[in-house]
Order: sequence, then C-alpha cells, then structure tokens
Amino acid sequence: MKRISLLGATGSIGQQTLDVIEFHPDHFKLVAMSLGNNIETGREIIRKFSPKLVSVKSQEAYEKLKGEFPNTSFVYGDEGLMEVATYHDANIMLNAVVGSVGLIPTLQAIKAGKTIALANKETLVTAGHLVMDAAKRNHVSILPVDSEHSAIFQCLQGESEKSIEKIILTASGGSFRDRTREELENVTVQDALNHPNWSMGAKITIDSATMMNKGLEVIEAHWLFDLPYEKIDVLLHKESIIHSMVEFQDSSVIAQLGTPDMKVPIQYALSYPDRLQMPVMKERLNLAEIGKLNFSNADFKRFRCLDLAYKAGKEGGTMPTVLNAANEEAVAAFLNGRISFLTIESIIENVLDKHHTVKDPSLDTIRQVDEETRRFVGTLLASK
Amino acid sequence: MKRISLLGATGSIGQQTLDVIEFHPDHFKLVAMSLGNNIETGREIIRKFSPKLVSVKSQEAYEKLKGEFPNTSFVYGDEGLMEVATYHDANIMLNAVVGSVGLIPTLQAIKAGKTIALANKETLVTAGHLVMDAAKRNHVSILPVDSEHSAIFQCLQGESEKSIEKIILTASGGSFRDRTREELENVTVQDALNHPNWSMGAKITIDSATMMNKGLEVIEAHWLFDLPYEKIDVLLHKESIIHSMVEFQDSSVIAQLGTPDMKVPIQYALSYPDRLQMPVMKERLNLAEIGKLNFSNADFKRFRCLDLAYKAGKEGGTMPTVLNAANEEAVAAFLNGRISFLTIESIIENVLDKHHTVKDPSLDTIRQVDEETRRFVGTLLASK
Repeated sequence: MKRISLLGATGSIGQQTLDVIEFHPDHFKLVAMSLGNNIETGREIIRKFSPKLVSVKSQEAYEKLKGEFPNTSFVYGDEGLMEVATYHDANIMLNAVVGSVGLIPTLQAIKAGKTIALANKETLVTAGHLVMDAAKRNHVSILPVDSEHSAIFQCLQGESEKSIEKIILTASGGSFRDRTREELENVTVQDALNHPNWSMGAKITIDSATMMNKGLEVIEAHWLFDLPYEKIDVLLHKESIIHSMVEFQDSSVIAQLGTPDMKVPIQYALSYPDRLQMPVMKERLNLAEIGKLNFSNADFKRFRCLDLAYKAGKEGGTMPTVLNAANEEAVAAFLNGRISFLTIESIIENVLDKHHTVKDPSLDTIRQVDEETRRFVGTLLASK
Repeated sequence: MKRISLLGATGSIGQQTLDVIEFHPDHFKLVAMSLGNNIETGREIIRKFSPKLVSVKSQEAYEKLKGEFPNTSFVYGDEGLMEVATYHDANIMLNAVVGSVGLIPTLQAIKAGKTIALANKETLVTAGHLVMDAAKRNHVSILPVDSEHSAIFQCLQGESEKSIEKIILTASGGSFRDRTREELENVTVQDALNHPNWSMGAKITIDSATMMNKGLEVIEAHWLFDLPYEKIDVLLHKESIIHSMVEFQDSSVIAQLGTPDMKVPIQYALSYPDRLQMPVMKERLNLAEIGKLNFSNADFKRFRCLDLAYKAGKEGGTMPTVLNAANEEAVAAFLNGRISFLTIESIIENVLDKHHTVKDPSLDTIRQVDEETRRFVGTLLASK
C-alpha cells in the first residue's frame, strides 16, 4: 500500500491524482494533502478521502475548516505545506503545486526520505542541482509525473543509461502552433487557454502556447536523466500521441505512446515499478483510427522561449532560476491582461540579458535571485 | 566475447550478421557457420573470418573446399548442419536459414545449451511447443531476430509479462499493399520481389506480399511471448518505422522505432542485454524528415493469408505445420513461375481444409505431416 501525501490537491493534476487513488483503494491511500484557495473543492475531497492531515493556505481558511472534520488535523501556510510534505505516515509525496513554491517542500520531503512523484517542473528548473544532490544523498527516487518525462522514464526501464544516444521530447506546439509570429501579436488570454490536446491548468497552458513549457521540460530532463543539453532534442508532433522517445547507441528508438491523459503518467509514478489497470479513461490508443502522426522540427525563431530556455540551461547556475521566475511573473501578468502575449518572451529575454550568473548557487542564493527577478519584472511591468 | 555459430551465412540475414560481427571484433567472433549453394560467397567469408568449422550442403562442395583452408574443418549435409548448430566452442547460435529445415538444428542447439538468436520464424511456426518446451527445460534463451519480434522484446525490457494488455505487430503491407485483389491476379514474380522498405531474401519478400509473413509472425509471437492470439493484433503501417508495439494494462504503449535495417535487431540479439554502437548503417531515424507516419487496419479479406494464419494458429496442433509447409511449397512454385500469385493462398487454404489436426504432436509427427503436406501440394501443382 502506497501512502500518499499530495501537494496541490485541488488543481488539475491534484484532482486527477485523486481519481487514480480512488480507482485503486487496495494500492493507494491519501494520508495528507494541501490545498490553495479552493476551499469548497477541498471540503469535498476531505469528505471523500478522510486524509489525516490537511494544510490550507491562510489562517482564515484554517479557522473555517478545523472544526468541521473531527478525524482530520489542519495546519496552514508555508509551515503547514512543509508538514504535509514530510508527513510521517506517507511513503510517497506527489508534488502537484504550480511554480517554484514547490521547491522547499520537495527538498524537505527528500530529507524525510519520501519517494518523490514530481509534477512540479519548476522545482528542477530553479534548483535542479540541489534537488538531485539531496535525492542522491538520501537515496530517494524522483519519479516524473510530466507526461514527457514519464515517457522517457518508461522507455529507459531495463536499459542502461550509458547506451543513451539522445532523448527526444515531443511538443504539441500548444494553442498557437499554426500561427505566424505576426498572428501572435493580438492573441487573447482566451485563445491561449484553448489547448488542442491536453486539459491542464492555466499557467502550463500558457507555457505550452509560448513553448516555454517545452523549454522548462528540457531543463527538467537534463536534471532527471543526467544528460547534457546536446543530448536533448525537441520534436514537434501535433497529435501528442508519442509522448517522448529515447534513441540508443545502436540507433534503436524506444517511444511511449497513448491518448493524451495525465492519469496515465500519474498512475505510473504511483504504481512504479508495477503497472496497474487503468479502469476509467477517455479511450485507449487506436492508431488506425487516428490514421496519421505528424512530425516536424521545432522552429527556434518562432518559438523564442524554447531558445531562451536552452541558453539558460546551458549557462546553468542561477540562470534557469531567473528564466523560471521571470516566466512565472510574465505569464501571471499576461493572464491578468496587463501585457500582450509576445511581451512574455521579451520580458524574459530582457531579464536574462541583465543577469550575471552565480555558479553552483546555494538555496539562499536561489531564493534571493528568484525574489530579485520577480521584483525586477515588477518594475518592468510598472513601466508598461 | 560472444562466440557465434551462424546457420545460413551466405543469405541476406547471414551476410548482415557478418557485417555486425565485423563491426565489433572485441565483442563477437564467428567460430562456426553453414552455407548453402553459394560456394563463392562462402569462400570469401571463410577467408575473412576464419571460422573453425564450416558445413556445406553437398559432399561435392565439401570435397572442393576442404583442401583450401588449412585452419578450417569442413563437414556437410544435415549432419554437418547439426555439428555447426551444436559446435562446442560457440555460446550463441544464430539461425538464419530459411524454412522449416531450421527446426532440427535449433532443437539440437537448445539441447547443447546454446543461446538461440532466431531469424528462422518457420521453426516456431511449425513446432513452437517443442522448441519453447526444450528451451525452458534447458534454461536457454530464445532471442528474436525478426524486426517485429525484436521490437516487442525490446519494449518488454524492464516490464512484467502479466501487465501486457496486447502486442501490436506492424505490417508494411509488402510490395502489393496498394493494389486491389483484381490487380493482384496478374502480378509477376518480379513485381512481388520489389519490397518497398526492406531488403530481404526472396521467400520472405513473397511472404510479405501475400501477408503470410505477418501471419507467420503472429504465430511466432504467440510462442515467443506466451500470449493467446486474442492479445496479438496486426496494424498496417506502410513506412515500417514503428517496428512493433506493446500495450500495457495501464493503457501506456511502448514502441520500438528505427529506419528499416535488419542489422539493428541482429546486433541487439547478439549484444543482448547490452546495446552497442551501430557504426555502419543507412541512416539514423529522423522523424521530422519523414514527416508523417500512417496507420490503418489490416483487411482480412484482401489479405487472406493473414486470416488463414490466425485460424491455423488458433487451431494449433499440426495445423500451423501444414500452413507453413503448404506456404513454402506454394511460394517456391510461384517463384518458379508454375503458379500465379493468388494461387498461393488458394493452395494453402485447400490444404488446410483437408487436414485433420493432431493435437500436441511429437517431432516425428510434425516431420511426417510436413512431408505429407509437401507431397500433397506437389499433386495439386501437377494437376495445374
């Protein structure tokens, strides 16, 4: 029985994780969880799964909920999040919060010896060296939940890392894959949120439209699979059926495929190294029905965020931290209607240009650079 | 160091196996081999690789060659083939002969404890239960060389057999994939030998055109992976880039891809469980350049041989032996210009209809049924 602590229970990944837990009561149990502002959904989850520990965002929400469920303990704020991440009765922590706020709980859970199922890619982008070092020292596994990294991870089962020639991350191209740069100038938030293949949260859907999502995944893959950037390729594949691939030295390529459904990688991370039945899903893959799969090279001029991510990743040190923080702030500003779509990338580029990399940064340095970057983006936005 | 005994050295698979051995002198050594009628090519191979033991087809060829190479011993005929298959200094036997003549040497090599790299699919089709039983009793591995079965075998690395939902063998459709049944009536041997993707021997190229090749592969997969026929699907995929796939219980599909090049599965069987560099090949896979992969359902009316193979496989016992023997004789007759292309399948169907299945047949029964079938096809041909 896997006893699961879930960070970000009310979000898109969180809810699909709960579906998977519900499918397999003999294999999975929710013992602790955190939630954000969505108290109503949180209540329903607590009623259904009776976790022993729940962390909420504010003291106000805490006061509201703590009397309602006699068998559940409540905590709140950053400290509460930490308590959920390290909960003594959990053996696996699934981190489904969005943004670099996921970093500290991940590090704490690693120190507490929990297996990490990681849906929060910003954790590895912003401080990959610290996370992977900690995991190694504490003999903890980091299991990817992202569909692309889960695909790579599945393709690598039974294989030796030394025989990897390269990995190939596939990219749908997001909501704007068929538009020219000119056409991108006046797109709306609503246009951007309309992803053709995947049902996901708002931030990651915008990241898909800018292709920054793929850039963050490249950096995530660098850390997860310990590969240089030269061995990480991106391939446009608009159907999102092949979720990613590994090419080996002997030229053989292993790929993982399926209908786009996040429950599959979520369940794999929880059931690993076993596989379990997937009882409730949209549909199984039927390639004859799909008929054709399309592939093309990623255009690094049209998708400048992807280029910026590769550059930040290769530079290393604090540069990916800056990339991620600038992206989070710029995407939030776009979602709030403060900037246009193409301004997201120009803000990120501007901020990266100004930054002087600190090599091998400590956690304190990363937090400081993260904060400075967000402040700097704030001043750029104020001047718009 | 893998010390290899190679049956069928001068054929298409044999020659590509020698290329692989030549690439990796630190890993592979040819210690014994058999050849058929192509004495001249045989001479070149012996000069280059200096095997210790060589078996030739006839006493005449034996007399010709035995004085020429002082460091090589020569043997001939069925007995010679057996000596090569069980050669004391080999630890792996690659069986690349064509047709059910490959069966007895395979069984002998298994008894001698050799790892089997099997390119000869007729071996498993005609007597799968005997071969797999013998392999189990002697703790011998049967490693597939066929590209589709190698693909499945690669996809299963690190996975548990109990989590297989089904396997999906891809089929190019062969030389006539775009022709209607009417158009098939007058095709020539030359048309049929012109396979769009794979460079292979004559018999297997005709089998590809009739789709009997895929049918034989279905039966081979049944034995190799111990799966019922209901869990073995065939999918038309004309580019032959995805070489086959496995769908697991959790709906995740793992596929093996590559440019069509038999050296890849040959080398994998020899290097297994490791992978080695593939230094000389046509080209590595470039999906962006290929652009599109196409898939469609196999039409069991247009491809009657595929349907016959599933039926013979499900019936079991001696029925697949009859299928294979009738097919070998009918294809030989087509290649000799004695019958038309569509007569291949009608002969096979006719012979299957007349046969009364013997369940769980002994090796003697199989040999007897095989001979009877060939005689019966002979009488059918004589009456044409």
